Amino acid sequence: MIVALSGGIGGAKLALGLSRVLPAGALTVIANVGDDFEHLGLAISPDIDTLTYTLAGLDNADLGWGRRDETWSFMDTLAAIGGETWFRLGDRDLALHVERTRRLARGETLSAITRDICRRLGASARILPVTDDAVRTRLKTSEGWMDFQPWFVGRRAEPAVSELVFAGAAAARPSPDVLAALAEAEAIVICPSNPFISIEPMLAVSGVEATLRASRAPVVAVSPIIGGRAVKGPTAKMMGELGMSSSARAVAERYDGLLNVYVADETDAGTLDGLGCRVVLAPTLMTTLTDKEALARVVLRAAAEAR
Amino acid sequence: MIVALSGGIGGAKLALGLSRVLPAGALTVIANVGDDFEHLGLAISPDIDTLTYTLAGLDNADLGWGRRDETWSFMDTLAAIGGETWFRLGDRDLALHVERTRRLARGETLSAITRDICRRLGASARILPVTDDAVRTRLKTSEGWMDFQPWFVGRRAEPAVSELVFAGAAAARPSPDVLAALAEAEAIVICPSNPFISIEPMLAVSGVEATLRASRAPVVAVSPIIGGRAVKGPTAKMMGELGMSSSARAVAERYDGLLNVYVADETDAGTLDGLGCRVVLAPTLMTTLTDKEALARVVLRAAAEAR
Repeated sequence: MIVALSGGIGGAKLALGLSRVLPAGALTVIANVGDDFEHLGLAISPDIDTLTYTLAGLDNADLGWGRRDETWSFMDTLAAIGGETWFRLGDRDLALHVERTRRLARGETLSAITRDICRRLGASARILPVTDDAVRTRLKTSEGWMDFQPWFVGRRAEPAVSELVFAGAAAARPSPDVLAALAEAEAIVICPSNPFISIEPMLAVSGVEATLRASRAPVVAVSPIIGGRAVKGPTAKMMGELGMSSSARAVAERYDGLLNVYVADETDAGTLDGLGCRVVLAPTLMTTLTDKEALARVVLRAAAEAR
Repeated sequence: MIVALSGGIGGAKLALGLSRVLPAGALTVIANVGDDFEHLGLAISPDIDTLTYTLAGLDNADLGWGRRDETWSFMDTLAAIGGETWFRLGDRDLALHVERTRRLARGETLSAITRDICRRLGASARILPVTDDAVRTRLKTSEGWMDFQPWFVGRRAEPAVSELVFAGAAAARPSPDVLAALAEAEAIVICPSNPFISIEPMLAVSGVEATLRASRAPVVAVSPIIGGRAVKGPTAKMMGELGMSSSARAVAERYDGLLNVYVADETDAGTLDGLGCRVVLAPTLMTTLTDKEALARVVLRAAAEAR
């Protein structure tokens, strides 16, 4: 059993690669819920949905987010009647949010709902929300404290970030499946996701980081930074704002002794000496499916060698 | 000022005709809310929406219900993930329900939301929910007590009806705009809607029937029955189940002294003697826009003559 911790888009790419090179049933992906929010009365879980769509082959390659074969009638009409349109919800995507909201309201857990939807859509790995409790990433920015999505989508992550909190994380309990998966893991993979807004909200859930640190399974992280830049999203920008250099090395140091292996891009060779964990260099940019599978093989080989 | 009381499809046809032959701003339509229900966590108001779409020229002529230019991605996806699909919600239609639900949750009234949406979509008359309080039509059927939509849509109105209640109606208060419109009305038109499930839930709202009976304005009803048959829907079937003959005459008698004028179809000539109100015969089947306008003129002429 391989367990991956993942945020949205970048992490989902590696998760897809892992799911394709591992035997069926061998991959569990623990998903961030710090990006989750209520919008238009709906419970929206962007990272879970991105993972679900990607692992079910339903992701929208043109947009880089959301669902394949999407239509936009809902959003067009919502605009016509004066609704809030800053967070775009496609017609197909909307069905997940409406159904999840309905099932949460009748007392089902996010884990159970996610499991059922993944099964119905044919996701190629198990996806576990890190917790069924509410964890909400909030950011102290140059414009004051902001909730995650109004900052990330509403303001395109532009306001400079000086501090993050994961409201609810200390009181949140990891789901029993999450703890069981981590206990059984032969390797734990930290996907190339944004450390501040994707990985750390999961580590902040009561007991998760301690479980990782106590695990006998090797922890293998993949750098989300290539040559000082993030492939997508605000990771590099945030590193600068938080007083770090925007480098692959700084991400590994941020994980502070948690890692057994760090997989970084070949272009960052020579910047990673003396990190205190094994470093593996590989092409980490995942454009094609072949790229994803190749990086997954590198990660699995490094994990096997570290056991 | 002309005030019309209307349910959904049949009533909306006459309301459209009236809106086209009256000067702008001269028509107010009071809408039934007894069909309203919560579904998938959304506040759905079928009669208000049918009136809105029809009066805004956005109704779906092919389906006979719902919105023009509709798409069904939401519903298709909801089916794929195991959601409830017995009540079909198009992608565009859904935007109204989501936006209404969001605004109700933050404390706006159904009246205010309806006014705003009508303005934005360009509805050609004012639409007033008969009340901002909850009124819910329930039916005692051959299969037990049922809520309206599970009976009407879920079971295609098949279970025989022996009794109806309008839960909440006695405690519900008509909105101030409804009372003001009725007080100012030069004529009150009861549209050719189902009396049991469209008109009577409105009359049952505290004070509405008394206001109509006390009004000096003539009350003109249009028969929903033509030659013993309902144009659409379960009106004739329900009349039989409730122990009435399914005739134009029986509808007028059901209104029990409320009417000054009854407009019935020419095919029902000779069946309406001694009704206790003036009877006007006209073609009442509204297929084309010309039909709707012609019937509207008949209604307005009859009202003018009755004043």
